[in-house]
Amino acid sequence: MKILVGYKGVNVGKDLIEIAARHALAFDGQVIVVTSMIGGSNTDPTEIKVAEDNLAEIQSFFKEKNIPCEIHLLVRGMEPGEDIVMFANENTVDEIIIGVRSRSKVGKLLFGSTSQVVILQADCPVVSVK
Amino acid sequence: MKILVGYKGVNVGKDLIEIAARHALAFDGQVIVVTSMIGGSNTDPTEIKVAEDNLAEIQSFFKEKNIPCEIHLLVRGMEPGEDIVMFANENTVDEIIIGVRSRSKVGKLLFGSTSQVVILQADCPVVSVK
Repeated sequence: MKILVGYKGVNVGKDLIEIAARHALAFDGQVIVVTSMIGGSNTDPTEIKVAEDNLAEIQSFFKEKNIPCEIHLLVRGMEPGEDIVMFANENTVDEIIIGVRSRSKVGKLLFGSTSQVVILQADCPVVSVK
Repeated sequence: MKILVGYKGVNVGKDLIEIAARHALAFDGQVIVVTSMIGGSNTDPTEIKVAEDNLAEIQSFFKEKNIPCEIHLLVRGMEPGEDIVMFANENTVDEIIIGVRSRSKVGKLLFGSTSQVVILQADCPVVSVK
Protein backbone atom coordinates (compact mmCIF):
# COMPACT_ATOMS: atom_id res chain seq x y z
CA MET A 1 0.00 0.00 0.00
CA LYS A 2 1.31 3.41 -1.04
CA ILE A 3 0.24 6.35 1.11
CA LEU A 4 0.81 9.83 -0.23
CA VAL A 5 0.99 12.64 2.33
CA GLY A 6 0.33 16.11 0.93
CA TYR A 7 2.34 18.43 3.11
CA LYS A 8 2.14 22.21 2.83
CA GLY A 9 5.80 22.82 3.58
CA VAL A 10 5.32 25.06 6.60
CA ASN A 11 5.29 23.77 10.18
CA VAL A 12 5.36 20.04 10.63
CA GLY A 13 1.73 18.97 10.95
CA LYS A 14 2.18 16.52 13.79
CA ASP A 15 -1.33 15.05 13.58
CA LEU A 16 -0.88 14.58 9.84
CA ILE A 17 2.32 12.56 10.09
CA GLU A 18 1.09 10.58 13.09
CA ILE A 19 -2.05 9.50 11.22
CA ALA A 20 0.14 8.63 8.23
CA ALA A 21 2.40 6.51 10.45
CA ARG A 22 -0.60 4.73 11.97
CA HIS A 23 -1.98 3.95 8.52
CA ALA A 24 1.40 2.83 7.18
CA LEU A 25 1.83 0.43 10.10
CA ALA A 26 -1.74 -0.93 9.90
CA PHE A 27 -1.57 -1.48 6.14
CA ASP A 28 2.12 -2.43 6.06
CA GLY A 29 2.57 0.43 3.63
CA GLN A 30 5.10 2.95 2.47
CA VAL A 31 4.79 6.70 2.78
CA ILE A 32 5.51 9.28 0.10
CA VAL A 33 5.54 12.83 1.44
CA VAL A 34 5.03 15.50 -1.18
CA THR A 35 5.18 19.26 -1.00
CA SER A 36 4.00 21.11 -4.07
CA MET A 37 5.02 24.67 -4.88
CA ILE A 38 4.26 26.54 -8.06
CA GLY A 39 7.77 27.90 -8.47
CA GLY A 40 9.02 30.73 -10.67
CA SER A 41 8.05 34.19 -9.49
CA ASN A 42 5.21 32.67 -7.41
CA THR A 43 7.50 31.05 -4.90
CA ASP A 44 10.03 32.63 -2.56
CA PRO A 45 13.33 30.67 -2.55
CA THR A 46 13.39 30.78 1.27
CA GLU A 47 10.02 28.94 1.31
CA ILE A 48 11.62 26.20 -0.77
CA LYS A 49 14.52 25.91 1.68
CA VAL A 50 12.11 25.71 4.65
CA ALA A 51 10.05 23.04 2.88
CA GLU A 52 13.19 20.99 2.13
CA ASP A 53 14.26 21.13 5.76
CA ASN A 54 10.79 20.15 6.99
CA LEU A 55 10.58 17.28 4.51
CA ALA A 56 13.94 15.97 5.75
CA GLU A 57 12.67 16.17 9.34
CA ILE A 58 9.50 14.28 8.41
CA GLN A 59 11.56 11.60 6.66
CA SER A 60 13.61 11.08 9.85
CA PHE A 61 10.38 10.68 11.83
CA PHE A 62 9.27 7.79 9.59
CA LYS A 63 12.75 6.26 9.38
CA GLU A 64 12.83 6.05 13.20
CA LYS A 65 9.62 4.05 13.09
CA ASN A 66 11.04 1.77 10.35
CA ILE A 67 8.41 2.98 7.89
CA PRO A 68 9.70 3.28 4.31
CA CYS A 69 9.45 6.93 3.32
CA GLU A 70 10.24 8.94 0.21
CA ILE A 71 10.11 12.73 0.12
CA HIS A 72 9.49 14.89 -2.94
CA LEU A 73 9.47 18.62 -3.41
CA LEU A 74 7.47 19.29 -6.57
CA VAL A 75 8.11 22.60 -8.27
CA ARG A 76 6.57 22.24 -11.67
CA GLY A 77 4.36 25.28 -12.16
CA MET A 78 1.12 23.62 -11.10
CA GLU A 79 -1.45 24.52 -8.47
CA PRO A 80 -0.79 22.26 -5.44
CA GLY A 81 -4.16 20.44 -5.57
CA GLU A 82 -3.82 19.42 -9.21
CA ASP A 83 -0.14 18.68 -8.74
CA ILE A 84 -0.81 16.30 -5.83
CA VAL A 85 -3.57 14.49 -7.75
CA MET A 86 -1.34 14.15 -10.82
CA PHE A 87 1.57 12.89 -8.73
CA ALA A 88 -0.78 10.40 -7.01
CA ASN A 89 -1.90 9.07 -10.39
CA GLU A 90 1.66 8.91 -11.75
CA ASN A 91 2.68 6.86 -8.71
CA THR A 92 -0.55 4.82 -8.41
CA VAL A 93 -0.97 5.55 -4.72
CA ASP A 94 -3.72 3.85 -2.71
CA GLU A 95 -4.52 6.66 -0.31
CA ILE A 96 -3.82 10.37 0.06
CA ILE A 97 -3.62 12.06 3.46
CA ILE A 98 -3.96 15.84 3.64
CA GLY A 99 -4.34 18.51 6.28
CA VAL A 100 -7.45 20.68 6.08
CA ARG A 101 -6.70 23.18 8.77
CA SER A 102 -7.16 26.58 7.12
CA ARG A 103 -8.46 29.61 8.91
CA SER A 104 -9.69 32.93 7.62
CA LYS A 105 -8.34 36.17 9.05
CA VAL A 106 -11.20 36.24 11.56
CA GLY A 107 -10.45 32.68 12.67
CA LYS A 108 -13.25 30.92 10.84
CA LEU A 109 -12.36 27.44 9.67
CA LEU A 110 -12.27 27.43 5.88
CA PHE A 111 -12.13 24.73 3.31
CA GLY A 112 -8.89 25.31 1.46
CA SER A 113 -9.10 25.06 -2.32
CA THR A 114 -6.16 22.63 -2.42
CA SER A 115 -8.02 20.20 -0.14
CA GLN A 116 -11.20 20.53 -2.18
CA VAL A 117 -9.41 19.78 -5.44
CA VAL A 118 -7.64 16.76 -3.97
CA ILE A 119 -10.80 15.31 -2.38
CA LEU A 120 -12.91 15.78 -5.50
CA GLN A 121 -10.37 14.80 -8.14
CA ALA A 122 -8.31 12.02 -6.58
CA ASP A 123 -8.89 8.49 -7.83
CA CYS A 124 -8.28 6.99 -4.38
CA PRO A 125 -9.68 7.61 -0.88
CA VAL A 126 -8.53 10.88 0.71
CA VAL A 127 -8.01 11.14 4.46
CA SER A 128 -8.51 14.67 5.81
CA VAL A 129 -6.83 15.56 9.07
CA LYS A 130 -7.52 18.79 10.93
CA MET B 1 -10.79 1.41 16.75
CA LYS B 2 -14.29 2.66 15.98
CA ILE B 3 -15.02 3.52 12.37
CA LEU B 4 -18.16 5.47 11.57
CA VAL B 5 -19.53 5.17 8.04
CA GLY B 6 -21.85 7.98 6.99
CA TYR B 7 -24.20 6.42 4.52
CA LYS B 8 -26.75 8.42 2.54
CA GLY B 9 -29.45 5.74 2.60
CA VAL B 10 -29.86 5.37 -1.17
CA ASN B 11 -27.98 2.79 -3.22
CA VAL B 12 -25.34 0.79 -1.44
CA GLY B 13 -22.09 2.64 -2.09
CA LYS B 14 -19.94 -0.38 -2.78
CA ASP B 15 -16.62 1.47 -2.71
CA LEU B 16 -17.59 3.07 0.58
CA ILE B 17 -18.28 -0.17 2.40
CA GLU B 18 -15.30 -1.93 0.85
CA ILE B 19 -12.94 0.79 2.06
CA ALA B 20 -14.62 0.59 5.48
CA ALA B 21 -14.08 -3.19 5.56
CA ARG B 22 -10.44 -2.79 4.57
CA HIS B 23 -9.89 -0.24 7.35
CA ALA B 24 -11.76 -2.32 9.93
CA LEU B 25 -9.62 -5.37 9.12
CA ALA B 26 -6.33 -3.42 9.09
CA PHE B 27 -7.07 -1.66 12.39
CA ASP B 28 -8.93 -4.58 13.97
CA GLY B 29 -11.85 -2.22 14.38
CA GLN B 30 -15.59 -2.14 14.53
CA VAL B 31 -17.88 -0.39 12.08
CA ILE B 32 -20.87 1.80 12.91
CA VAL B 33 -22.96 2.63 9.85
CA VAL B 34 -25.16 5.68 10.25
CA THR B 35 -27.81 7.18 8.00
CA SER B 36 -29.11 10.57 9.05
CA MET B 37 -32.45 11.94 7.92
CA ILE B 38 -34.07 15.13 9.14
CA GLY B 39 -37.50 13.55 9.65
CA GLY B 40 -40.88 15.18 10.08
CA SER B 41 -42.30 16.77 6.95
CA ASN B 42 -38.78 16.87 5.43
CA THR B 43 -38.53 13.12 5.00
CA ASP B 44 -40.72 10.80 2.95
CA PRO B 45 -41.58 7.62 4.93
CA THR B 46 -40.66 5.47 1.92
CA GLU B 47 -37.13 6.94 2.03
CA ILE B 48 -36.86 5.76 5.63
CA LYS B 49 -37.96 2.26 4.65
CA VAL B 50 -35.40 2.14 1.81
CA ALA B 51 -32.66 3.35 4.15
CA GLU B 52 -33.56 0.70 6.75
CA ASP B 53 -33.40 -2.05 4.12
CA ASN B 54 -30.08 -0.80 2.79
CA LEU B 55 -28.61 -0.56 6.29
CA ALA B 56 -29.64 -4.16 6.96
CA GLU B 57 -27.96 -5.23 3.71
CA ILE B 58 -24.77 -3.37 4.67
CA GLN B 59 -24.79 -5.03 8.08
CA SER B 60 -24.96 -8.48 6.43
CA PHE B 61 -21.97 -7.55 4.26
CA PHE B 62 -19.84 -6.84 7.34
CA LYS B 63 -21.18 -9.81 9.30
CA GLU B 64 -20.09 -12.11 6.46
CA LYS B 65 -16.56 -10.75 6.82
CA ASN B 66 -16.71 -11.21 10.62
CA ILE B 67 -16.41 -7.48 11.16
CA PRO B 68 -18.43 -6.20 14.14
CA CYS B 69 -21.04 -3.81 12.77
CA GLU B 70 -23.79 -1.67 14.28
CA ILE B 71 -26.33 0.19 12.16
CA HIS B 72 -28.21 3.34 13.16
CA LEU B 73 -30.89 5.31 11.39
CA LEU B 74 -30.86 8.77 12.95
CA VAL B 75 -34.02 10.80 12.58
CA ARG B 76 -33.63 13.64 15.02
CA GLY B 77 -34.38 16.80 13.08
CA MET B 78 -30.77 17.67 12.33
CA GLU B 79 -28.96 18.37 9.08
CA PRO B 80 -27.03 15.18 8.17
CA GLY B 81 -23.53 16.73 8.39
CA GLU B 82 -24.03 18.11 11.89
CA ASP B 83 -25.88 14.97 12.94
CA ILE B 84 -23.01 12.71 11.85
CA VAL B 85 -20.42 14.88 13.62
CA MET B 86 -22.51 14.92 16.81
CA PHE B 87 -23.04 11.16 16.69
CA ALA B 88 -19.30 10.67 16.12
CA ASN B 89 -18.52 12.75 19.20
CA GLU B 90 -21.17 11.00 21.32
CA ASN B 91 -19.64 7.65 20.37
CA THR B 92 -15.97 8.77 20.43
CA VAL B 93 -15.22 7.30 17.04
CA ASP B 94 -11.66 7.27 15.69
CA GLU B 95 -12.40 7.74 12.01
CA ILE B 96 -15.32 8.73 9.80
CA ILE B 97 -15.71 7.43 6.25
CA ILE B 98 -18.03 9.28 3.87
CA GLY B 99 -18.91 9.26 0.21
CA VAL B 100 -18.36 12.48 -1.70
CA ARG B 101 -19.88 11.56 -5.02
CA SER B 102 -22.37 14.33 -5.80
CA ARG B 103 -23.11 15.57 -9.27
CA SER B 104 -24.93 18.64 -10.47
CA LYS B 105 -27.70 18.37 -13.07
CA VAL B 106 -25.15 18.94 -15.83
CA GLY B 107 -22.92 16.18 -14.48
CA LYS B 108 -20.29 18.36 -12.83
CA LEU B 109 -18.77 16.84 -9.70
CA LEU B 110 -19.83 18.93 -6.71
CA PHE B 111 -18.75 19.09 -3.14
CA GLY B 112 -21.85 18.20 -1.12
CA SER B 113 -22.52 20.36 1.91
CA THR B 114 -22.85 17.31 4.16
CA SER B 115 -19.32 16.19 3.26
CA GLN B 116 -17.94 19.68 3.79
CA VAL B 117 -19.51 19.97 7.25
CA VAL B 118 -18.23 16.54 8.30
CA ILE B 119 -14.68 17.16 7.03
CA LEU B 120 -14.41 20.59 8.63
CA GLN B 121 -16.15 19.91 11.92
CA ALA B 122 -15.22 16.33 12.84
CA ASP B 123 -12.73 15.84 15.65
CA CYS B 124 -11.19 12.77 13.98
CA PRO B 125 -9.74 12.04 10.53
CA VAL B 126 -12.33 11.82 7.76
CA VAL B 127 -11.85 9.46 4.81
CA SER B 128 -13.57 10.63 1.63
CA VAL B 129 -14.46 8.04 -0.97
CA LYS B 130 -15.73 8.96 -4.43
